[in-house]
Amino acid sequence: MGKLYVIGVGPGAPEECTLRAQKALEEAEVLCGYTLYINLLRSRYPEKEVFTTGMTQELERCRRALELAASGRTVALVCSGDAGVYGLASPVLELAPQFPEAEIEIIPGVTAALSGAALLGAPLGHDFCVISLSDRLTPWSVIEKRLLCAAEGDFVLCLYNPASRHRKDSLRRASELLLSVRPAGTLCALVQNIAREGQSLRLLPLGELPSASADMFTTVFIGSSQTKAVNGRMVTPRGYGA
Amino acid sequence: MGKLYVIGVGPGAPEECTLRAQKALEEAEVLCGYTLYINLLRSRYPEKEVFTTGMTQELERCRRALELAASGRTVALVCSGDAGVYGLASPVLELAPQFPEAEIEIIPGVTAALSGAALLGAPLGHDFCVISLSDRLTPWSVIEKRLLCAAEGDFVLCLYNPASRHRKDSLRRASELLLSVRPAGTLCALVQNIAREGQSLRLLPLGELPSASADMFTTVFIGSSQTKAVNGRMVTPRGYGA
Repeated sequence: MGKLYVIGVGPGAPEECTLRAQKALEEAEVLCGYTLYINLLRSRYPEKEVFTTGMTQELERCRRALELAASGRTVALVCSGDAGVYGLASPVLELAPQFPEAEIEIIPGVTAALSGAALLGAPLGHDFCVISLSDRLTPWSVIEKRLLCAAEGDFVLCLYNPASRHRKDSLRRASELLLSVRPAGTLCALVQNIAREGQSLRLLPLGELPSASADMFTTVFIGSSQTKAVNGRMVTPRGYGA
Repeated sequence: MGKLYVIGVGPGAPEECTLRAQKALEEAEVLCGYTLYINLLRSRYPEKEVFTTGMTQELERCRRALELAASGRTVALVCSGDAGVYGLASPVLELAPQFPEAEIEIIPGVTAALSGAALLGAPLGHDFCVISLSDRLTPWSVIEKRLLCAAEGDFVLCLYNPASRHRKDSLRRASELLLSVRPAGTLCALVQNIAREGQSLRLLPLGELPSASADMFTTVFIGSSQTKAVNGRMVTPRGYGA
Protein backbone atom coordinates (compact mmCIF):
# COMPACT_ATOMS: atom_id res chain seq x y z
CA MET A 1 0.00 0.00 0.00
CA GLY A 2 1.47 3.33 -1.10
CA LYS A 3 0.81 6.80 0.21
CA LEU A 4 -0.40 9.95 -1.49
CA TYR A 5 0.10 13.25 0.28
CA VAL A 6 -1.98 16.05 -1.22
CA ILE A 7 -0.10 19.08 0.00
CA GLY A 8 -0.86 22.78 0.14
CA VAL A 9 2.49 24.54 0.25
CA GLY A 10 1.19 28.06 0.87
CA PRO A 11 1.48 31.15 -1.27
CA GLY A 12 4.96 30.92 -2.74
CA ALA A 13 8.02 31.36 -0.57
CA PRO A 14 9.18 28.04 0.99
CA GLU A 15 8.94 29.54 4.50
CA GLU A 16 5.14 29.89 4.09
CA CYS A 17 4.89 26.08 4.10
CA THR A 18 3.94 24.27 7.33
CA LEU A 19 6.43 21.96 9.04
CA ARG A 20 4.05 19.07 8.36
CA ALA A 21 3.95 19.84 4.64
CA GLN A 22 7.72 20.11 4.54
CA LYS A 23 8.14 16.73 6.25
CA ALA A 24 5.80 15.12 3.72
CA LEU A 25 7.74 16.68 0.82
CA GLU A 26 10.95 15.27 2.27
CA GLU A 27 9.44 11.82 2.77
CA ALA A 28 7.99 11.59 -0.75
CA GLU A 29 9.79 9.64 -3.47
CA VAL A 30 7.86 11.31 -6.30
CA LEU A 31 6.72 14.93 -6.61
CA CYS A 32 3.68 15.60 -8.83
CA GLY A 33 2.31 18.97 -9.76
CA TYR A 34 1.88 21.85 -12.11
CA THR A 35 5.13 22.39 -14.00
CA LEU A 36 5.76 25.90 -12.61
CA TYR A 37 5.49 24.85 -8.94
CA ILE A 38 7.46 21.65 -9.34
CA ASN A 39 10.27 23.54 -11.01
CA LEU A 40 10.42 25.80 -7.95
CA LEU A 41 10.73 22.71 -5.70
CA ARG A 42 13.09 20.72 -7.89
CA SER A 43 16.15 22.68 -6.80
CA ARG A 44 15.39 21.88 -3.15
CA TYR A 45 14.91 18.16 -3.84
CA PRO A 46 17.16 17.38 -6.82
CA GLU A 47 17.22 13.63 -6.05
CA LYS A 48 13.46 13.09 -6.31
CA GLU A 49 11.52 11.78 -9.28
CA VAL A 50 9.06 14.32 -10.67
CA PHE A 51 5.86 14.17 -12.71
CA THR A 52 4.63 17.48 -14.05
CA THR A 53 1.67 18.49 -16.21
CA GLY A 54 0.45 21.80 -17.60
CA MET A 55 -2.20 23.97 -16.07
CA THR A 56 -5.38 22.43 -17.47
CA GLN A 57 -4.35 18.81 -17.03
CA GLU A 58 -5.33 18.49 -13.38
CA LEU A 59 -7.29 15.27 -13.73
CA GLU A 60 -4.41 13.56 -15.48
CA ARG A 61 -2.10 14.75 -12.70
CA CYS A 62 -4.42 13.40 -9.98
CA ARG A 63 -4.86 10.07 -11.73
CA ARG A 64 -1.11 9.62 -12.24
CA ALA A 65 -0.39 10.50 -8.59
CA LEU A 66 -2.99 7.93 -7.47
CA GLU A 67 -1.56 5.28 -9.81
CA LEU A 68 1.94 5.82 -8.45
CA ALA A 69 0.71 5.63 -4.86
CA ALA A 70 -1.38 2.52 -5.62
CA SER A 71 1.77 0.88 -7.00
CA GLY A 72 3.41 1.28 -3.58
CA ARG A 73 5.27 4.57 -3.95
CA THR A 74 5.17 7.55 -1.58
CA VAL A 75 3.91 10.48 -3.62
CA ALA A 76 3.48 14.20 -2.95
CA LEU A 77 0.90 15.99 -5.08
CA VAL A 78 1.81 19.65 -4.66
CA CYS A 79 -0.71 22.50 -4.79
CA SER A 80 -0.08 26.18 -4.17
CA GLY A 81 -2.01 27.69 -1.27
CA ASP A 82 -4.30 25.07 0.29
CA ALA A 83 -4.97 21.79 -1.54
CA GLY A 84 -8.64 21.85 -0.57
CA VAL A 85 -9.58 25.35 -1.78
CA TYR A 86 -10.12 25.07 -5.57
CA GLY A 87 -7.22 22.63 -5.38
CA LEU A 88 -6.62 19.00 -6.18
CA ALA A 89 -7.90 17.44 -2.94
CA SER A 90 -11.46 17.22 -4.38
CA PRO A 91 -10.64 15.49 -7.68
CA VAL A 92 -8.20 13.13 -5.92
CA LEU A 93 -10.87 12.08 -3.43
CA GLU A 94 -13.46 11.71 -6.19
CA LEU A 95 -11.09 9.34 -8.04
CA ALA A 96 -9.96 7.55 -4.86
CA PRO A 97 -12.51 4.66 -4.98
CA GLN A 98 -10.76 3.50 -8.20
CA PHE A 99 -7.44 3.24 -6.31
CA PRO A 100 -8.11 1.33 -3.06
CA GLU A 101 -4.37 0.59 -2.74
CA ALA A 102 -3.51 4.26 -2.27
CA GLU A 103 -3.71 5.74 1.22
CA ILE A 104 -4.52 9.46 0.98
CA GLU A 105 -3.63 12.25 3.41
CA ILE A 106 -4.59 15.88 2.81
CA ILE A 107 -2.17 18.41 4.34
CA PRO A 108 -3.63 21.91 4.64
CA GLY A 109 -1.77 25.09 3.78
CA VAL A 110 -2.15 28.87 3.83
CA THR A 111 -4.56 29.74 1.01
CA ALA A 112 -4.38 33.11 -0.81
CA ALA A 113 -7.34 34.49 1.15
CA LEU A 114 -5.25 34.24 4.33
CA SER A 115 -1.85 35.19 2.95
CA GLY A 116 -3.29 38.08 0.96
CA ALA A 117 -5.26 39.26 4.00
CA ALA A 118 -2.14 39.25 6.19
CA LEU A 119 -0.32 41.46 3.68
CA LEU A 120 -3.24 43.89 3.52
CA GLY A 121 -3.87 44.00 7.27
CA ALA A 122 -6.89 42.13 8.55
CA PRO A 123 -9.72 42.31 5.98
CA LEU A 124 -11.04 38.86 7.04
CA GLY A 125 -11.50 39.83 10.69
CA HIS A 126 -15.20 39.03 10.44
CA ASP A 127 -17.50 36.73 8.37
CA PHE A 128 -16.33 36.28 4.77
CA CYS A 129 -17.00 34.46 1.51
CA VAL A 130 -14.52 33.02 -0.96
CA ILE A 131 -15.72 32.95 -4.58
CA SER A 132 -13.88 31.92 -7.74
CA LEU A 133 -14.65 33.97 -10.86
CA SER A 134 -13.53 31.14 -13.15
CA ASP A 135 -16.40 29.92 -15.31
CA ARG A 136 -14.39 27.00 -16.70
CA LEU A 137 -16.22 24.49 -14.46
CA THR A 138 -19.03 26.67 -13.06
CA PRO A 139 -21.82 28.45 -14.98
CA TRP A 140 -21.48 32.24 -14.79
CA SER A 141 -25.11 32.42 -13.56
CA VAL A 142 -24.08 30.49 -10.40
CA ILE A 143 -21.18 32.88 -9.85
CA GLU A 144 -23.49 35.91 -10.24
CA LYS A 145 -26.01 34.47 -7.79
CA ARG A 146 -23.27 33.94 -5.20
CA LEU A 147 -21.83 37.42 -5.66
CA LEU A 148 -25.27 38.93 -5.07
CA CYS A 149 -26.00 36.76 -2.02
CA ALA A 150 -22.59 37.57 -0.53
CA ALA A 151 -23.13 41.29 -1.13
CA GLU A 152 -26.64 41.16 0.38
CA GLY A 153 -25.28 39.36 3.44
CA ASP A 154 -22.68 42.14 3.92
CA PHE A 155 -19.87 39.58 3.91
CA VAL A 156 -16.29 40.48 3.18
CA LEU A 157 -15.58 38.88 -0.22
CA CYS A 158 -12.39 37.31 -1.38
CA LEU A 159 -12.33 36.60 -5.13
CA TYR A 160 -10.02 33.98 -6.66
CA ASN A 161 -9.24 33.69 -10.38
CA PRO A 162 -10.43 37.21 -11.28
CA ALA A 163 -8.90 36.83 -14.77
CA SER A 164 -6.97 34.47 -17.00
CA ARG A 165 -5.27 34.76 -20.37
CA HIS A 166 -8.55 34.05 -22.16
CA ARG A 167 -10.92 35.63 -19.67
CA LYS A 168 -10.33 39.34 -19.28
CA ASP A 169 -13.62 40.88 -18.13
CA SER A 170 -14.76 38.71 -15.18
CA LEU A 171 -13.64 41.24 -12.58
CA ARG A 172 -15.40 44.10 -14.38
CA ARG A 173 -18.64 42.10 -14.63
CA ALA A 174 -18.43 40.93 -11.01
CA SER A 175 -17.67 44.35 -9.59
CA GLU A 176 -20.41 46.05 -11.61
CA LEU A 177 -22.83 43.51 -10.16
CA LEU A 178 -21.57 44.19 -6.63
CA LEU A 179 -22.00 47.93 -7.23
CA SER A 180 -25.74 47.30 -7.71
CA VAL A 181 -25.89 46.31 -4.00
CA ARG A 182 -22.87 47.85 -2.24
CA PRO A 183 -21.85 51.53 -2.02
CA ALA A 184 -19.15 52.71 -4.45
CA GLY A 185 -17.01 53.78 -1.48
CA THR A 186 -16.70 50.20 -0.14
CA LEU A 187 -13.02 49.53 0.56
CA CYS A 188 -11.45 46.96 -1.78
CA ALA A 189 -7.96 45.69 -2.47
CA LEU A 190 -5.95 43.81 -5.07
CA VAL A 191 -2.99 41.63 -4.09
CA GLN A 192 -0.66 40.25 -6.74
CA ASN A 193 2.08 37.60 -6.62
CA ILE A 194 1.76 36.92 -2.89
CA ALA A 195 5.10 35.95 -1.32
CA ARG A 196 6.69 35.89 -4.79
CA GLU A 197 8.71 38.21 -6.98
CA GLY A 198 6.57 41.15 -8.07
CA GLN A 199 4.40 41.13 -4.94
CA SER A 200 2.17 44.21 -4.92
CA LEU A 201 -0.82 45.61 -3.04
CA ARG A 202 -3.40 48.22 -3.98
CA LEU A 203 -6.30 49.59 -1.93
CA LEU A 204 -9.12 51.16 -3.91
CA PRO A 205 -12.87 51.90 -3.63
CA LEU A 206 -15.38 49.49 -5.18
CA GLY A 207 -16.29 52.21 -7.69
CA GLU A 208 -12.81 51.85 -9.24
CA LEU A 209 -12.75 48.05 -9.27
CA PRO A 210 -14.49 47.59 -12.68
CA SER A 211 -11.59 49.31 -14.44
CA ALA A 212 -8.81 47.75 -12.33
CA SER A 213 -6.49 45.28 -14.00
CA ALA A 214 -6.05 41.77 -12.62
CA ASP A 215 -4.41 38.57 -13.79
CA MET A 216 -4.37 34.92 -12.71
CA PHE A 217 -1.97 35.74 -9.86
CA THR A 218 -4.29 38.39 -8.38
CA THR A 219 -6.55 37.94 -5.35
CA VAL A 220 -9.30 40.52 -4.82
CA PHE A 221 -10.79 41.64 -1.50
CA ILE A 222 -14.08 43.53 -1.16
CA GLY A 223 -14.84 44.92 2.28
CA SER A 224 -18.07 44.70 4.25
CA SER A 225 -19.90 47.79 5.49
CA GLN A 226 -17.56 47.70 8.54
CA THR A 227 -14.24 47.44 6.69
CA LYS A 228 -12.00 50.50 6.88
CA ALA A 229 -8.48 51.73 6.14
CA VAL A 230 -6.30 52.24 9.23
CA ASN A 231 -2.78 53.58 8.64
CA GLY A 232 -3.00 52.34 5.03
CA ARG A 233 -4.08 48.86 6.03
CA MET A 234 -7.42 47.17 5.30
CA VAL A 235 -9.14 46.18 8.54
CA THR A 236 -12.50 44.55 9.26
CA PRO A 237 -13.28 44.82 12.99
CA ARG A 238 -14.13 41.61 14.80
CA GLY A 239 -17.56 42.83 15.75
CA TYR A 240 -20.15 45.58 15.62
CA GLY A 241 -20.31 48.39 18.17
CA ALA A 242 -17.56 48.93 20.75
CA MET B 1 11.50 50.90 17.17
CA GLY B 2 10.30 47.51 18.33
CA LYS B 3 8.54 44.80 16.41
CA LEU B 4 5.22 43.07 16.95
CA TYR B 5 4.59 39.81 15.13
CA VAL B 6 0.92 38.82 15.16
CA ILE B 7 1.18 35.10 14.49
CA GLY B 8 -1.30 32.42 13.52
CA VAL B 9 0.22 29.14 14.67
CA GLY B 10 -2.34 26.83 13.05
CA PRO B 11 -4.74 24.40 14.65
CA GLY B 12 -2.78 22.89 17.51
CA ALA B 13 0.16 20.63 16.90
CA PRO B 14 3.45 22.53 16.48
CA GLU B 15 4.02 20.93 13.06
CA GLU B 16 0.93 22.74 11.68
CA CYS B 17 2.81 26.03 12.10
CA THR B 18 4.54 27.61 9.07
CA LEU B 19 8.32 27.95 9.00
CA ARG B 20 7.88 31.73 8.94
CA ALA B 21 5.73 31.66 12.07
CA GLN B 22 8.25 29.43 13.80
CA LYS B 23 11.12 31.76 12.94
CA ALA B 24 9.20 34.72 14.37
CA LEU B 25 8.45 32.78 17.58
CA GLU B 26 12.15 32.02 17.92
CA GLU B 27 13.14 35.63 17.28
CA ALA B 28 10.67 37.09 19.79
CA GLU B 29 11.81 38.13 23.28
CA VAL B 30 8.28 38.16 24.69
CA LEU B 31 5.37 35.80 23.94
CA CYS B 32 1.85 37.19 24.47
CA GLY B 33 -1.34 35.24 24.20
CA TYR B 34 -4.25 33.41 25.70
CA THR B 35 -3.05 31.48 28.75
CA LEU B 36 -3.86 28.04 27.30
CA TYR B 37 -1.88 28.54 24.07
CA ILE B 38 1.08 30.21 25.76
CA ASN B 39 1.34 27.36 28.22
CA LEU B 40 1.59 24.97 25.27
CA LEU B 41 4.45 27.06 23.83
CA ARG B 42 6.27 27.75 27.10
CA SER B 43 7.87 24.32 27.21
CA ARG B 44 9.37 24.88 23.74
CA TYR B 45 10.72 28.34 24.66
CA PRO B 46 11.42 28.19 28.41
CA GLU B 47 13.82 31.16 28.29
CA LYS B 48 11.32 33.66 26.93
CA GLU B 49 9.33 36.22 28.88
CA VAL B 50 5.57 35.63 28.67
CA PHE B 51 2.47 37.75 29.08
CA THR B 52 -0.79 35.84 29.25
CA THR B 53 -4.42 36.88 29.70
CA GLY B 54 -7.70 34.98 29.92
CA MET B 55 -10.07 34.38 27.08
CA THR B 56 -12.15 37.56 27.14
CA GLN B 57 -9.26 39.97 27.71
CA GLU B 58 -8.17 40.25 24.09
CA LEU B 59 -8.01 44.04 23.98
CA GLU B 60 -5.81 44.15 27.07
CA ARG B 61 -3.54 41.54 25.45
CA CYS B 62 -3.27 43.53 22.21
CA ARG B 63 -2.58 46.79 24.03
CA ARG B 64 0.12 45.22 26.19
CA ALA B 65 1.78 43.59 23.16
CA LEU B 66 1.80 46.96 21.37
CA GLU B 67 3.21 48.71 24.46
CA LEU B 68 6.03 46.20 24.73
CA ALA B 69 6.84 46.54 21.02
CA ALA B 70 6.67 50.34 21.21
CA SER B 71 9.20 50.20 24.04
CA GLY B 72 11.68 48.52 21.69
CA ARG B 73 11.08 44.83 22.38
CA THR B 74 10.45 42.08 19.82
CA VAL B 75 7.07 40.60 20.68
CA ALA B 76 5.06 37.64 19.36
CA LEU B 77 1.31 37.84 19.86
CA VAL B 78 0.18 34.26 19.39
CA CYS B 79 -3.22 33.26 17.98
CA SER B 80 -4.45 29.76 17.21
CA GLY B 81 -5.37 29.17 13.56
CA ASP B 82 -4.92 32.35 11.55
CA ALA B 83 -4.44 35.69 13.32
CA GLY B 84 -6.67 37.47 10.82
CA VAL B 85 -9.77 35.24 11.01
CA TYR B 86 -11.69 36.29 14.15
CA GLY B 87 -8.20 36.73 15.61
CA LEU B 88 -6.17 39.55 17.09
CA ALA B 89 -4.83 41.08 13.87
CA SER B 90 -7.89 43.37 13.59
CA PRO B 91 -7.84 44.83 17.12
CA VAL B 92 -4.05 45.23 16.96
CA LEU B 93 -4.29 47.21 13.72
CA GLU B 94 -7.17 49.29 15.07
CA LEU B 95 -5.01 50.24 18.10
CA ALA B 96 -1.84 50.69 16.02
CA PRO B 97 -2.17 54.46 15.41
CA GLN B 98 -1.71 54.94 19.19
CA PHE B 99 1.65 53.12 19.03
CA PRO B 100 3.62 54.59 16.12
CA GLU B 101 6.85 53.17 17.59
CA ALA B 102 5.70 49.58 17.04
CA GLU B 103 6.31 47.98 13.66
CA ILE B 104 3.61 45.35 13.00
CA GLU B 105 3.84 42.22 10.86
CA ILE B 106 0.92 39.80 10.46
CA ILE B 107 1.97 36.18 9.83
CA PRO B 108 -0.82 34.01 8.43
CA GLY B 109 -1.58 30.47 9.57
CA VAL B 110 -3.86 27.54 8.83
CA THR B 111 -7.30 28.51 10.14
CA ALA B 112 -9.78 25.87 11.38
CA ALA B 113 -11.79 26.03 8.13
CA LEU B 114 -8.75 24.68 6.27
CA SER B 115 -7.42 22.25 8.87
CA GLY B 116 -10.90 20.90 9.59
CA ALA B 117 -11.60 20.55 5.88
CA ALA B 118 -8.39 18.58 5.30
CA LEU B 119 -9.39 16.13 8.03
CA LEU B 120 -12.85 15.69 6.55
CA GLY B 121 -11.71 15.41 2.93
CA ALA B 122 -12.30 18.42 0.72
CA PRO B 123 -15.56 20.14 1.72
CA LEU B 124 -14.19 23.57 0.68
CA GLY B 125 -13.43 22.51 -2.90
CA HIS B 126 -15.77 25.21 -4.20
CA ASP B 127 -17.07 28.62 -3.06
CA PHE B 128 -17.59 28.88 0.69
CA CYS B 129 -18.53 31.21 3.55
CA VAL B 130 -17.07 31.41 7.03
CA ILE B 131 -19.50 32.63 9.72
CA SER B 132 -19.04 32.92 13.48
CA LEU B 133 -22.06 32.08 15.61
CA SER B 134 -20.74 34.12 18.53
CA ASP B 135 -23.10 36.99 19.35
CA ARG B 136 -20.72 38.52 21.88
CA LEU B 137 -19.69 41.29 19.43
CA THR B 138 -22.26 40.79 16.64
CA PRO B 139 -26.07 41.10 16.85
CA TRP B 140 -27.79 37.74 16.31
CA SER B 141 -29.93 39.37 13.57
CA VAL B 142 -26.76 39.98 11.51
CA ILE B 143 -25.71 36.35 11.97
CA GLU B 144 -29.16 35.14 10.86
CA LYS B 145 -29.13 37.34 7.78
CA ARG B 146 -25.72 35.96 6.77
CA LEU B 147 -26.78 32.36 7.34
CA LEU B 148 -29.79 32.87 5.08
CA CYS B 149 -27.80 34.64 2.36
CA ALA B 150 -25.13 31.91 2.43
CA ALA B 151 -27.80 29.21 2.21
CA GLU B 152 -29.55 30.98 -0.65
CA GLY B 153 -26.26 31.32 -2.52
CA ASP B 154 -25.68 27.55 -2.18
CA PHE B 155 -22.30 28.18 -0.56
CA VAL B 156 -20.54 25.60 1.55
CA LEU B 157 -20.68 27.02 5.09
CA CYS B 158 -18.05 26.76 7.75
CA LEU B 159 -19.28 27.84 11.20
CA TYR B 160 -16.89 28.99 13.94
CA ASN B 161 -17.82 29.34 17.61
CA PRO B 162 -20.96 27.17 17.41
CA ALA B 163 -21.20 27.14 21.23
CA SER B 164 -19.55 28.37 24.39
CA ARG B 165 -19.97 27.68 28.08
CA HIS B 166 -22.75 30.29 28.31
CA ARG B 167 -24.19 29.90 24.83
CA LYS B 168 -25.58 26.44 24.23
CA ASP B 169 -28.26 26.77 21.55
CA SER B 170 -26.61 28.78 18.74
CA LEU B 171 -26.01 25.72 16.57
CA ARG B 172 -29.60 24.55 17.00
CA ARG B 173 -30.97 27.99 16.06
CA ALA B 174 -28.60 28.34 13.10
CA SER B 175 -29.26 24.90 11.69
CA GLU B 176 -33.04 25.24 12.05
CA LEU B 177 -32.76 28.44 10.03
CA LEU B 178 -30.65 26.72 7.37
CA LEU B 179 -33.26 23.93 7.20
CA SER B 180 -35.79 26.54 6.04
CA VAL B 181 -33.73 26.91 2.84
CA ARG B 182 -31.60 23.77 2.41
CA PRO B 183 -32.77 20.13 2.15
CA ALA B 184 -32.53 18.03 5.34
CA GLY B 185 -30.28 15.58 3.50
CA THR B 186 -27.52 18.20 2.95
CA LEU B 187 -24.22 16.68 4.06
CA CYS B 188 -22.75 18.29 7.18
CA ALA B 189 -19.86 17.57 9.52
CA LEU B 190 -18.57 18.41 12.97
CA VAL B 191 -14.84 18.48 13.71
CA GLN B 192 -13.59 18.74 17.28
CA ASN B 193 -10.15 19.45 18.76
CA ILE B 194 -8.37 19.69 15.40
CA ALA B 195 -4.75 18.46 15.62
CA ARG B 196 -5.11 18.12 19.41
CA GLU B 197 -5.87 15.41 21.93
CA GLY B 198 -9.48 14.29 21.54
CA GLN B 199 -9.64 15.04 17.81
CA SER B 200 -12.90 13.69 16.36
CA LEU B 201 -14.96 13.87 13.19
CA ARG B 202 -18.63 13.21 12.52
CA LEU B 203 -20.54 13.35 9.22
CA LEU B 204 -24.28 13.84 9.51
CA PRO B 205 -27.23 15.20 7.50
CA LEU B 206 -28.44 18.77 8.11
CA GLY B 207 -31.65 17.35 9.55
CA GLU B 208 -29.65 15.99 12.51
CA LEU B 209 -27.59 19.12 13.10
CA PRO B 210 -30.09 20.92 15.40
CA SER B 211 -29.71 18.16 18.00
CA ALA B 212 -25.95 17.67 17.59
CA SER B 213 -23.71 18.71 20.44
CA ALA B 214 -20.88 21.19 19.90
CA ASP B 215 -18.49 23.14 22.11
CA MET B 216 -16.04 25.99 21.69
CA PHE B 217 -13.49 23.62 20.11
CA THR B 218 -15.92 22.48 17.38
CA THR B 219 -15.96 23.64 13.77
CA VAL B 220 -19.09 22.91 11.72
CA PHE B 221 -19.29 22.32 7.97
CA ILE B 222 -22.52 22.47 5.94
CA GLY B 223 -22.28 21.25 2.36
CA SER B 224 -23.59 22.90 -0.78
CA SER B 225 -26.03 21.13 -3.12
CA GLN B 226 -22.96 19.52 -4.77
CA THR B 227 -21.26 18.22 -1.63
CA LYS B 228 -21.21 14.43 -1.21
CA ALA B 229 -19.67 11.63 0.81
CA VAL B 230 -17.00 9.60 -1.03
CA ASN B 231 -15.47 6.67 0.87
CA GLY B 232 -16.57 8.31 4.13
CA ARG B 233 -15.01 11.65 3.24
CA MET B 234 -16.83 14.96 2.66
CA VAL B 235 -16.10 16.26 -0.84
CA THR B 236 -17.31 19.32 -2.73
CA PRO B 237 -16.38 18.98 -6.43
CA ARG B 238 -14.45 21.87 -7.98
CA GLY B 239 -17.16 22.54 -10.50
CA TYR B 240 -20.55 21.68 -11.88
CA GLY B 241 -21.05 19.06 -14.59
CA ALA B 242 -18.20 16.80 -15.76
